[in-house]
Amino acid sequence: MKRILIDCDPGIDDALALALAAGSRDTLDVVGVTTVGGNVDLPLTTANALALREFLDLGDVPVTPGSAGALLRHTVRATAVHGVTGLGNAVLPAPRRGPSEGHAVDFIVDTLRAAPGEITLVAVGPLTNVALAVRRDPRVVEWARDLVIMGGSYSRGNHNPAAEFNILADPEAAAIVFDAGWTVKQLGLDVTLSAVVTSDVLDRMRPLGRLGAELLVPAAQSYMAVTAEGGPAIHDACAVAYVLDPSLFTCVPAVVNVETNGTYTRGMTVTDFEVGDRQANALVATSLDVKRFWDLVLGAYERLAARLD
Amino acid sequence: MKRILIDCDPGIDDALALALAAGSRDTLDVVGVTTVGGNVDLPLTTANALALREFLDLGDVPVTPGSAGALLRHTVRATAVHGVTGLGNAVLPAPRRGPSEGHAVDFIVDTLRAAPGEITLVAVGPLTNVALAVRRDPRVVEWARDLVIMGGSYSRGNHNPAAEFNILADPEAAAIVFDAGWTVKQLGLDVTLSAVVTSDVLDRMRPLGRLGAELLVPAAQSYMAVTAEGGPAIHDACAVAYVLDPSLFTCVPAVVNVETNGTYTRGMTVTDFEVGDRQANALVATSLDVKRFWDLVLGAYERLAARLD
Amino acid sequence: MKRILIDCDPGIDDALALALAAGSRDTLDVVGVTTVGGNVDLPLTTANALALREFLDLGDVPVTPGSAGALLRHTVRATAVHGVTGLGNAVLPAPRRGPSEGHAVDFIVDTLRAAPGEITLVAVGPLTNVALAVRRDPRVVEWARDLVIMGGSYSRGNHNPAAEFNILADPEAAAIVFDAGWTVKQLGLDVTLSAVVTSDVLDRMRPLGRLGAELLVPAAQSYMAVTAEGGPAIHDACAVAYVLDPSLFTCVPAVVNVETNGTYTRGMTVTDFEVGDRQANALVATSLDVKRFWDLVLGAYERLAARLD
Amino acid sequence: MKRILIDCDPGIDDALALALAAGSRDTLDVVGVTTVGGNVDLPLTTANALALREFLDLGDVPVTPGSAGALLRHTVRATAVHGVTGLGNAVLPAPRRGPSEGHAVDFIVDTLRAAPGEITLVAVGPLTNVALAVRRDPRVVEWARDLVIMGGSYSRGNHNPAAEFNILADPEAAAIVFDAGWTVKQLGLDVTLSAVVTSDVLDRMRPLGRLGAELLVPAAQSYMAVTAEGGPAIHDACAVAYVLDPSLFTCVPAVVNVETNGTYTRGMTVTDFEVGDRQANALVATSLDVKRFWDLVLGAYERLAARLD
Repeated sequence: MKRILIDCDPGIDDALALALAAGSRDTLDVVGVTTVGGNVDLPLTTANALALREFLDLGDVPVTPGSAGALLRHTVRATAVHGVTGLGNAVLPAPRRGPSEGHAVDFIVDTLRAAPGEITLVAVGPLTNVALAVRRDPRVVEWARDLVIMGGSYSRGNHNPAAEFNILADPEAAAIVFDAGWTVKQLGLDVTLSAVVTSDVLDRMRPLGRLGAELLVPAAQSYMAVTAEGGPAIHDACAVAYVLDPSLFTCVPAVVNVETNGTYTRGMTVTDFEVGDRQANALVATSLDVKRFWDLVLGAYERLAARLD
Repeated sequence: MKRILIDCDPGIDDALALALAAGSRDTLDVVGVTTVGGNVDLPLTTANALALREFLDLGDVPVTPGSAGALLRHTVRATAVHGVTGLGNAVLPAPRRGPSEGHAVDFIVDTLRAAPGEITLVAVGPLTNVALAVRRDPRVVEWARDLVIMGGSYSRGNHNPAAEFNILADPEAAAIVFDAGWTVKQLGLDVTLSAVVTSDVLDRMRPLGRLGAELLVPAAQSYMAVTAEGGPAIHDACAVAYVLDPSLFTCVPAVVNVETNGTYTRGMTVTDFEVGDRQANALVATSLDVKRFWDLVLGAYERLAARLD
Repeated sequence: MKRILIDCDPGIDDALALALAAGSRDTLDVVGVTTVGGNVDLPLTTANALALREFLDLGDVPVTPGSAGALLRHTVRATAVHGVTGLGNAVLPAPRRGPSEGHAVDFIVDTLRAAPGEITLVAVGPLTNVALAVRRDPRVVEWARDLVIMGGSYSRGNHNPAAEFNILADPEAAAIVFDAGWTVKQLGLDVTLSAVVTSDVLDRMRPLGRLGAELLVPAAQSYMAVTAEGGPAIHDACAVAYVLDPSLFTCVPAVVNVETNGTYTRGMTVTDFEVGDRQANALVATSLDVKRFWDLVLGAYERLAARLD
Repeated sequence: MKRILIDCDPGIDDALALALAAGSRDTLDVVGVTTVGGNVDLPLTTANALALREFLDLGDVPVTPGSAGALLRHTVRATAVHGVTGLGNAVLPAPRRGPSEGHAVDFIVDTLRAAPGEITLVAVGPLTNVALAVRRDPRVVEWARDLVIMGGSYSRGNHNPAAEFNILADPEAAAIVFDAGWTVKQLGLDVTLSAVVTSDVLDRMRPLGRLGAELLVPAAQSYMAVTAEGGPAIHDACAVAYVLDPSLFTCVPAVVNVETNGTYTRGMTVTDFEVGDRQANALVATSLDVKRFWDLVLGAYERLAARLD
């Protein structure tokens, strides 16, 4: 059983990542969900996380809200992609329970401290909470079993030619996280853009009862309308898939530096695969076995759908 | 009775600021001391704060350690000024009690929350702890009665031509603090450089018993050896003096931006006194009534000396 | 007899600088005037230089136009200060002769090369032409007898809190010029702001015939309306005055770096007077003998006025 | 007959580009060669250009030296790739004739002005000379028939993960050139890295008499030793090949911005293919027909070899 703490900003693909986790409860134990402002504002990402906790039957996993905006500068949002609610066309039942007391940063620090070496931190939004946890107590780097993120790219950005959204939304936080001393498992656009909901995949989602009808299909369809041809990529689900089965990905050690100063490159993850005798600070995914990925994801969705209906 | 929480990095002038607070206990209630890496490393600034708590008879004021290094980048130290211990030639008795549990950032958040509108935060080191508190819970800005800092300058720097040490040591933190929504009361080099321990002032310190012999005089003398002609400036004491009597200073509203990107100007507080119809984010001290300042400071030292002997 | 080449962007105070040169022809030989876009656009600065050549009886001094905009980035103008024509309320007769063939950069290179060690380059606008001349032929640094500029400041800016207009209008050019290997004689705002046309000075300009009535007084008055209390400073005239009598100024060696990257400090001349064992690249004026300055300037104006009427 | 002016920094691949031009004299008229400091220092790039003019039988094409270093900042060299002479193991006979009088920047301006719309500027080194020509007389943008450069990349750099050498060697110059108003034909690493001298290509070079024995083979072999597996890429020859036959390349309009400020990305050409309703400032090559490229290049080399022996 792998234990994970998910820091997220739901967000359509965050929702699909949480659904993957919920459908994998035989092998995955979600010890907490923390939220951050990102795709949409913090009140919405928190509300969405609360609605998803109940809709996905995540039990009493605590949902703890965290940072509303970027560490240093202005806030960037992706409302054009995720819609004003953050979940596109999906409309979930209003949650009955509210968030936990306390703050995501404290929750991360306390949870990791309580079980050193056991919990993998999975961060699929801007890295504000993770960076603040690192600065609040640098020992989280040792306490975490692993840090898996969705963010960045060594090829091209999505928000602009150089930067991917999660990193651009808080470059200073990303710089702190990449420099903190651990080896970041980085799932960037280089692989997540191949995790596309094709029409074939969509056909496999349709029969999935309420899960399909109320979340997967409407979310994917609204996402589809705003993303590139070939269908929408469910970026964040890659991070959970990596925890479930790292062998889905080819990963290469690299030295990753986050650009915080460039006029056109702020938020870029500058990736040097020629590590030489330096210490790699990241293991960067360079390819994804797409077929096995969807088998894993859709299998989990099927199990979850069966449970929910 | 004014209540203050002192965030500091002792440091010679931090020590003299704490002595001023200790000598003013009729009107000033120190509710806590938090430490930050700055003039010297965090273990030393914490050890010095602990030693000073006992030497200055500060009672059971909690001393809580905080951030070891800057928010984003490399750490700068001022060992050349403050000596390897941080207290110059002063050698205080080893403290018998240790620091409080917990972290300075939490202490700041919790303390301000517990008494909204009552406690003035006095920050005389790099602003790392304060910035993290702001990001940890933005409501500290409302809860604080006031924020008084020693840092920056609208004229020239001391660590380099553009930047003052406390700001240079963590420019991103300073940018966060100045942008947080409060009106920072800023005592910069523009006034602190006139708070000089002249030979005349030194003569008034000599008769002050143990306080003079073990702290004030050796600290000032070691400081004197490394600072400009005219004697050493006790920068940090200005911040405590401001709380005790703001009328010592002329203050002017300004828009202050902290430069984080410049090649030669990183850490500079760029001060625009032509506020126009913008909201001033700082009240910047532009002159100090030196005579009244020393009367206030030496008066407090005398009361403290009497109590200590 | 001192020989000077004036690179300028008239501009009210450029006009008053040219008038000073014209009134000093017993000791000063103006070998050429080159123009640059600055206070106003290049066509206007050139037209003004041509009009001034005739109005000030500068004879057949060639006027050669140069760079229209900044080396690298966007162009800044000071139309609010100098009016749409660049000469405020002064209206000079239309010139009968046009500019010289060729380009200011070539004129500077060729003129300095033809008389190595003899000609002082006086630059009172953005440094675009001078920088291009340096890059076009680095030997201009050896050929020039001296380089005297009006620009920058070690205290505060005028266009914004950090930057003076001439440097801000082309920071990359300024960086090239300060790094070129010569010792720049820098008359910055620190002194030029004391070269103020007070009402007393204005009274001494009024009797000066056509020179006073058509140029000095209307120019000063329109300038006065837009500058700080105390009257307008005739910045550029300080550079010509320095050539005539360097003893008017106290000058201090310094290492000056031009900030090209800062968010709030682009265009700032970061001045380090603690040169240590580095090579100073500038001799920075720190004070002006105001009384002797006006005696020199008004004396020249009187001689010129007598000649013109 | 196409007329070209080649601005270069020989450099092994510059030499192979000049050889391509020399072997194409039935269709290509080289009106001048200008040199710039780049792969090696200016005296060496000029000496190499002079040696190549005679060895390649380029007749009386003028060779005019230009800028020694970057416009603004420090100079970068690629001696590790091109050897201390700049031509690897190739040793050419000492030239009998020297360079032309004058400066490359003037030569470029004068040559383009004399034949508006007729001459294509081919720049295969740092863009210092071209940028200075643009600033010296912005009309070169109209006078040039076209500007074809080897430089930059929309994927990854070679000198570091973000930047290609020619752009990194003078980012400010590149920024000026890309912003000048023309549509830059950009052959970047994205295509030039596929123009590789494979062992098969090398076998076709060996029989080429003196040209093969004294230049092509030793140059390629020394180059091979220091470049990636698969053999060396003759980057600069792509630019000449583009002039000879643009149909070798797929090209896509883009908005290209040169990063001059980044900590890790200075010198990167940030390429946005989503031009939208902006004006594209570059036509960026995205693929090369490798077989046809080598047929063109080796055909020209064969003709030249026949002529030389």
